[in-house]
Amino acid sequence: MPLSEFDLIERYFRNCGARREDVELGVGDDAAILQCPAGERLVAAIDTLVEGVHFLRGCPAASVGHRALAVNLSDLAAMGARPAWALLALTLPEADEAWLAEFASGFAELARLHEVVLVGGDTTRGPLCVTVQILGHIQGAALLRSGGKPGDALFVSGTPGDAAAGLALEQGMLAAPAQAQYLRERFLFPTPRVALGSVLREYASACIDVSDGLLGDAGKMAAASGCGADIAYEALPVSQSLAQAVGPERARELSLTGGDDYELCFSVRPGDLDRLLTQLPPQRWGYTRIGTLRAAPGVQVVRNGAPMVLTHAGYEHFARSR
Amino acid sequence: MPLSEFDLIERYFRNCGARREDVELGVGDDAAILQCPAGERLVAAIDTLVEGVHFLRGCPAASVGHRALAVNLSDLAAMGARPAWALLALTLPEADEAWLAEFASGFAELARLHEVVLVGGDTTRGPLCVTVQILGHIQGAALLRSGGKPGDALFVSGTPGDAAAGLALEQGMLAAPAQAQYLRERFLFPTPRVALGSVLREYASACIDVSDGLLGDAGKMAAASGCGADIAYEALPVSQSLAQAVGPERARELSLTGGDDYELCFSVRPGDLDRLLTQLPPQRWGYTRIGTLRAAPGVQVVRNGAPMVLTHAGYEHFARSR
Repeated sequence: MPLSEFDLIERYFRNCGARREDVELGVGDDAAILQCPAGERLVAAIDTLVEGVHFLRGCPAASVGHRALAVNLSDLAAMGARPAWALLALTLPEADEAWLAEFASGFAELARLHEVVLVGGDTTRGPLCVTVQILGHIQGAALLRSGGKPGDALFVSGTPGDAAAGLALEQGMLAAPAQAQYLRERFLFPTPRVALGSVLREYASACIDVSDGLLGDAGKMAAASGCGADIAYEALPVSQSLAQAVGPERARELSLTGGDDYELCFSVRPGDLDRLLTQLPPQRWGYTRIGTLRAAPGVQVVRNGAPMVLTHAGYEHFARSR
Repeated sequence: MPLSEFDLIERYFRNCGARREDVELGVGDDAAILQCPAGERLVAAIDTLVEGVHFLRGCPAASVGHRALAVNLSDLAAMGARPAWALLALTLPEADEAWLAEFASGFAELARLHEVVLVGGDTTRGPLCVTVQILGHIQGAALLRSGGKPGDALFVSGTPGDAAAGLALEQGMLAAPAQAQYLRERFLFPTPRVALGSVLREYASACIDVSDGLLGDAGKMAAASGCGADIAYEALPVSQSLAQAVGPERARELSLTGGDDYELCFSVRPGDLDRLLTQLPPQRWGYTRIGTLRAAPGVQVVRNGAPMVLTHAGYEHFARSR
């Protein structure tokens, strides 16, 4: 017997995630009522995953639940904000209980890890599509895309490109038995860098999350800051698994243009570099210097001292030319 | 030349709606930064419209923009909250500029009317689907679904059923040339009852917005309040246009079971009735008494003193039985 919308929400989405004292009214009424901490501002983002665009048909439901929240947590991470509450709009072709249970558990596990609770939502029938809206808090200055200046050092967290290889594995376009599990996990269950974003508020001049490819997103951050960037090809961090799976050349290419990593790209003033490197040791926090912001617009990748010719600058939903 | 995602957002969604001093950072970064008024709580809701489910293929884009916001404003109205900020997740098969311009203008016009500003969003490619998330504020007690008690008087705003007839006209399933314009408008451009919801906080014991049909939504409110309801068939408010278009019998049926009206259904304690009727005159505020909450569960429609047999209790996205 198919589930009613009411039963579906009751069974899978009530008490989904952490418990929080600041939720006066959660799932179940026309809207949620939430208590904002005094002296803090609200930070809000929204992101959609569409089947066939952001995840493959037949993708594990737990991954869809995890990623729908992770992409939003990553947006808050890029602002240095502390996540608190989420709302979920779920469009489903049918109320498949096994799928829903797995989806909800993937969502809830990541939510609990970040002390996030689902406070509201909407379920509708239609092509599979998941929109999550996240709310968090911030005290003091937020990390913006626009704070960088020429001369600021440019960094990225993690090892971008892994998720793109994971997607290629999922699509059957890459074979790499020894690295498959690691790379697949990086695509299916990305780690939003919430803790890093939060501490970076004391050090970074600008920050963006890398969702559409490092090259494109670094370019967006540089442009918002009114500058450009030089990226050192040799400095690009590449995981051992990725290098072994696709070779070192293709690995660096993927680290520049692959999407879905949800790492942070950020800039730091020269005068703050020592403090950053000693107080947030790169090997502990997992970030790498990849270049420098410059006055001239655009992003240039420099290899052996010469600029590379680049043809693909990351994923665009509505490409200017195809 | 197709628009890039960046251009699309810049052109149609930056400065969309009202201007508000409490928006520290709006559309354009990873997330929005918003200032919550001290001493107030945040109220949050999310709703999705899917093409082919909530609106017809070829429906005017201005209506889709209006309704995507209206359904959310209606959720806040049902809580008695004051709307402030919205986020928009727009999934489009292609970046059709004419459609987007019309969509954005429908959204913006209603947003300005309610002093709402669009502060963030996400655009993705996929089947046409619009999710809006709304944030508002409330001071003091909110209107909940759960506050009703047996003996409370039951009311509804406006004339439910009009939107269902408007939809039937759009679908070509009804012909009513003289009433078509009025009824179509009621479906395409519903009026969320934000001002009514806000003042009702001083009078109503419970409230819900009527989106899926009065009978079903009154039943949800009664159930959340731990009671049932008696509705007087003869008391059901029906617009002259609806009665003329479909006849008085079918008009009352539509007023009970038709969806998409976004009116408010609310209950009032017997001791508060005089105050309500004198301070919020029904003819000015546009609401009608339709019945009474009762102890026995379920909703009963009484006609000529006898309970009616009902077969359809409103729209369910995932119906228990089909």
